[in-house]
Formats: sequence, structure tokens, C-alpha cells
Amino acid sequence: SSASTPIRATLFPGDGIGPEIAESVKQVFQAAEVPIEWEEHYVGTEIDPRTQSFLTWESLESVRRNRVGLKGPMATPIGKGHRSLNLTLRKELNLYANVRPCYSLPGYKTRYDNVDLITIRENTEGEYSGLEHQVVRGVVESLKIITRQASLRVAEYAFHYAKAHGRERVSAIHKANIMQKTDGLFLKCCREVAEKYPEIQYEEVVIDNCCMMLVKNPALFDVLVMPNLYGDIISDLCAGLIGGLGLTPSCNIGEGGIALAEAVHGSAPDIAGKNLANPTALLLSSVTMLRHLDLHDKAESIQNAILNTIAEGKYRTADLGGSSKTTEFTKAIIDHL
Amino acid sequence: SSASTPIRATLFPGDGIGPEIAESVKQVFQAAEVPIEWEEHYVGTEIDPRTQSFLTWESLESVRRNRVGLKGPMATPIGKGHRSLNLTLRKELNLYANVRPCYSLPGYKTRYDNVDLITIRENTEGEYSGLEHQVVRGVVESLKIITRQASLRVAEYAFHYAKAHGRERVSAIHKANIMQKTDGLFLKCCREVAEKYPEIQYEEVVIDNCCMMLVKNPALFDVLVMPNLYGDIISDLCAGLIGGLGLTPSCNIGEGGIALAEAVHGSAPDIAGKNLANPTALLLSSVTMLRHLDLHDKAESIQNAILNTIAEGKYRTADLGGSSKTTEFTKAIIDHL
Ligand SMILES: CC(C)[C@H](C(=O)O)[C@@H](O)C(=O)O
Ligand SMILES: CC(C)[C@H](C(=O)O)[C@@H](O)C(=O)O
Repeated sequence: SSASTPIRATLFPGDGIGPEIAESVKQVFQAAEVPIEWEEHYVGTEIDPRTQSFLTWESLESVRRNRVGLKGPMATPIGKGHRSLNLTLRKELNLYANVRPCYSLPGYKTRYDNVDLITIRENTEGEYSGLEHQVVRGVVESLKIITRQASLRVAEYAFHYAKAHGRERVSAIHKANIMQKTDGLFLKCCREVAEKYPEIQYEEVVIDNCCMMLVKNPALFDVLVMPNLYGDIISDLCAGLIGGLGLTPSCNIGEGGIALAEAVHGSAPDIAGKNLANPTALLLSSVTMLRHLDLHDKAESIQNAILNTIAEGKYRTADLGGSSKTTEFTKAIIDHL
Repeated sequence: SSASTPIRATLFPGDGIGPEIAESVKQVFQAAEVPIEWEEHYVGTEIDPRTQSFLTWESLESVRRNRVGLKGPMATPIGKGHRSLNLTLRKELNLYANVRPCYSLPGYKTRYDNVDLITIRENTEGEYSGLEHQVVRGVVESLKIITRQASLRVAEYAFHYAKAHGRERVSAIHKANIMQKTDGLFLKCCREVAEKYPEIQYEEVVIDNCCMMLVKNPALFDVLVMPNLYGDIISDLCAGLIGGLGLTPSCNIGEGGIALAEAVHGSAPDIAGKNLANPTALLLSSVTMLRHLDLHDKAESIQNAILNTIAEGKYRTADLGGSSKTTEFTKAIIDHL
């Protein structure tokens, strides 16, 4: 409750439009009396040798200590000798599952109605191993690594999530007809976990067929779990069904119960500082963070305020066809609390 | 012209519904007086040691000799010790580019209007290398191989195709932000070829973003070229936009000017032999084969007959919501010639 000691959470406002949309979250949380105290961390301007990236050691320590955080978009500065900020966060914090709920926003029309999907992406290995070599001139290879440990871990998370959220089915997405060993191991792990959840239906769907079925009829799916790159692709496809990455939340789950929610859209430098950005993805991400903290009442009231504001249609940012400023849209959400 | 010596072409009717839809093509070609003589080859019932698969050596020789063929669906028999039929054909005939035109069928409504896309997929390497290892227990790897030679070859084909078909833009689809060496080499090759085609616009799009844009607005794209697995995924996604794999043609281009057109849908054993199958994908594939042979008048008249029959809506197979038999639909097409 708001009377007790506040929960400390790390906030990475990020770059570009990041600070503006983070401000929107802070205001909505304050108005909703969410018992959270933010520890704000910006991306550094120099490479921190302890993280080998522009992320400061302090900011990572902050997430490790608080075990919960919210992250705006971070553009990786161009140049050599450092790692992508997003990938560094995933690796350093061992953020093994990326959960992206994707649902139609009432009143915001796209080609699809009633989309309600959850993509759960393995977030640490697969095609993102970073292992690449030139074999001979003109011949290069990338290694896709699948481990039993990481596959079991994300499968376990997916079934746990499905059960906790009253979902009916988990679909494992793969290309094991071609990558029999790697995707085959992934499926084997999913099957092992599925056996422990007889109340949840389990199926396996080849990725190409999955994409075709998703665009034909997304209602065929419920919770989807998959290796890293397939998750990258399918979560963006799903976001497209309901309007794009500006509208979909995301939350990364790490070892030891860490949850780092994030807006996965870009930092949109062209509109940064102009009070034009749509804070919806970061706000909905902050809601997933609240649910992770079991602050369900606050989560519910903020989510409803966001959805009702969009549904009403009077205050919408330019990307949704409206003409509201970020601050006007934020105020409208607060008025709907 | 139909008076001169007929062109010999290989026909793989394939399994399941394959023979019925192949029969449909044969009848339409006959009615349209296409100067083609088919050499029919069925998949063998035993492994041919020369192909290490159920494909007979004679059938491969037939395609090599004729340099043009049409293929129905082939289900790979279950069991060890042999290779997938589709993959064997690609490897043995060096079918390096898979071209999948995808356009809205007039009168057949989906969520998308006026789709008009061409996916060109590298068809011999990438994630389909077949190189996989167990590193230690519980850790497996798959190798994605990208070569300069295969990348240049498919890029060259894509730009050549774009120019020959009056297309404006080629988009190279990649994930070079993660696989810098492999997808990086693929992009480098595309850029080299793009320089030789100043009249064709060139852009590079990350695969996740491409999928999101495709479902939001497919009109953003024109010709897409990409490594093997991305092509597998995106061509199915595109097919989904216009109704599915039952409606989209495909043609494989091999070294030495080989063209093997194919229906990429499954063999649908559940409806095989029941005169229920939709021959559209195989018929439209046969049209791409005719265009490859520069039989443009025949191609045009058959394509129009197919599209007009579907548009009219009186004769449609069950998968398109109608109740026509395969033979009735075929007869309607012939009547529209
Ligand atoms: C920016 C990029 C490295 C990243 C990814 O590929 O994971 C992004 O697409 C995402 O989904 O978070
Ligand atoms: C059946 C399968 C091996 C094949 C592929 O992955 O290439 C299919 O999906 C295709 O697109 O032709």
C-alpha cells in the first residue's frame, strides 16, 4: 500500500524521445499514487570498462539491487569497441525471457480485431551468440547456439506464465525440420516442461507456417514461446497487427526474479524534444512491471486509464492520427485514473 | 509457336493432391495449346543411391536436360537415411533463387487489397547448410553459412528480375545488426549489385521491422531479396496476406538457366483423391514457367483465365469458400481461355 515503504525501481529514460515518455510514466505513477521511488540512470557518454559499453556500472548495479526497472529506447552510439546497449543489458542482467503481450486497443482500428497474443522469446542465445567467423575469403559463418538450460528456463517461464494468467495454450515456434539439432533441442525442452502442465495445451508450429497463420487469423494462437531470432521477428509481426511497436509493452525477466520492462520502439530522434512522442508503449510496459510486483490494483487502474483515453479518441498523439502533445495525452490519462 | 517442335518440360506431379492438380495443369495447357510436352516423373518408392533420396536419378536428369519443369507438392517420407525431397532438388539442381510473386486475387477478399510483392529467396545456403553439432551435452550449434558467390548470384537475379519486370525497388532483408558477418556479407553483395542498376531503387530493411511493415502496409515493398530462412518466413507471411499458399506461385531458378516452378503448399493427404484440391498455386506456378520460356501470350491468357474464374466467384474450390470440384474449377478456367 502507498503508506508503507516505497519500492525502489530503476528507470532508464533512454535517448531521443525517451526522457519525455519516461516523464509521462512518472507523472501517471505519481497521480495514481503508485508506491514506487525511481532511481534514474542515463546512458553514459563514455565506455565504462566494467560493462564494456556506454552503460554505467552503477546503472546495472541499480537494477541488480532493485530487481525491477523500466527502460526507454536506447540508441547504440555508432562506432567500434563497444557492445549494443540493449544486448549488453540482456547479457549482463541475464534477462532470459522477453515477454511481449500484444492485444488490440479498443477503439483503435487496424485490420485485425480482438488480437490477444503473448510472445515469449528466449533472450540470451540462439542466433544472438555473437559467434561469427570468416572460414575462407568470401565464406562466413554465424553460430546459432541452443542450450538445454536456457531452453528449459524459457519454456518453464512460458508455461508458468500461461498458467498464472489463465491462458489455455502454449505454441512452441521452431524450424526443426531444417535445424534438427538446435531447434530440435529447443522443442525437446518445451515438451519436457509441457508434461508438467497437463492443464495447458501444447503444440509445435513451424515458423513460416506460424507467420502465415498469424496474418490470416491471429486468434489461432495464445501464448507463443520460441528461440531468440524467431521471437524478434514474430513479436514485431504481432505488434504490426495491432498498430506497431509504439503500442506494445515488453518485459524482460532475468535470473533471480529481475524484471526490466521496456518500450521496444526506437528513440525517434527526429521528434525528440518536441512533445510529440506517444508514451503508450512505455506506459503499458510500466503496467507489466507493476503486475510483476503484484501491484495489480495500480496496474489495472493505469492500464484502464490508458486504454480508455485511446478508446475515447479525443486525445491521441500524431502517430495515432490525433494532434495531442505528449503532455496533453498524459494529462488525459491522469484524468481517466 | 504451337506449330514448331514442342518444348519438353519435366513434370513432377508429386504426392497427395499433386496428381489431381497436375492433371488440371495438363488440361489447361492442352486447351490453351501450349507447345509443351511433359516428361512425367513420380517420386520413387526406394532410395536411389545416386541421389541419396527417393528422387530418381532419371527425374533429375530430365530437369537437367529440359532445363524447365513443374513440381507439385512432395511429402518427404518419414524415416532416416535420406534427405528431404525439396531440399535434395534444390541442392542437386543448384536452384539458387526462389521467386515467389504474391498479389491480391481480384474478387477474393482478404484483409489486404492490392498486394503486389515479389520475394526472392536465396535457396542453397544460410541456415539450411545442414551443419549442426553437439558441442557438449546440452549445448548444440547450427552453422549459418553465407558466401559471396551465392549472395552475388541471388542479388544479381533480383535486380535483373526487377529491371525485366519494370519494378522500381529492391529491398534487401537482413539482421546485420546482430549477424554482422553473415548478413553483413549478404548486404555488401547486394550493394555491389545495386550499383550496377542505378535505375532501380535499393534499400535495406531489418527483418523484424520488415515483418511489422508488411502486416501494416504491404504496399511499402516491391521486390524483396534475402537469405534463405528469411525468405522462407517472409514468403509465407506474404502468402498469408492474400489468402495462403494455395494461391501463390513459386519458381526456382538454377545455374545454367534451369527453372523449376512449384506449388509450395503441402500435399494435403486428407483430401487427396477426392477431387477437392485447389490447383491455383500449381497453375499460377506453371504460368511463371511459361514466362520463363518467353511464352508470354500463353502465360497471359492462362493467368487471366485463372484470375477471371476466381474473380467471377461462381466456381471456387472449398478452401476459397466455394463448392466446386477440382475438375469443375479446371473446366471453368478452360471456358475462360
Ligand atoms: C535493436 C535490436 C538489436 C533488437 C533485437 O534484435 O533484439 C530489437 O529488434 C529488439 O527486438 O529488441
Ligand atoms: C518443407 C520445408 C523444408 C521448406 C523450406 O523450409 O524451405 C518449405 O517451407 C518451403 O518453403 O519450401
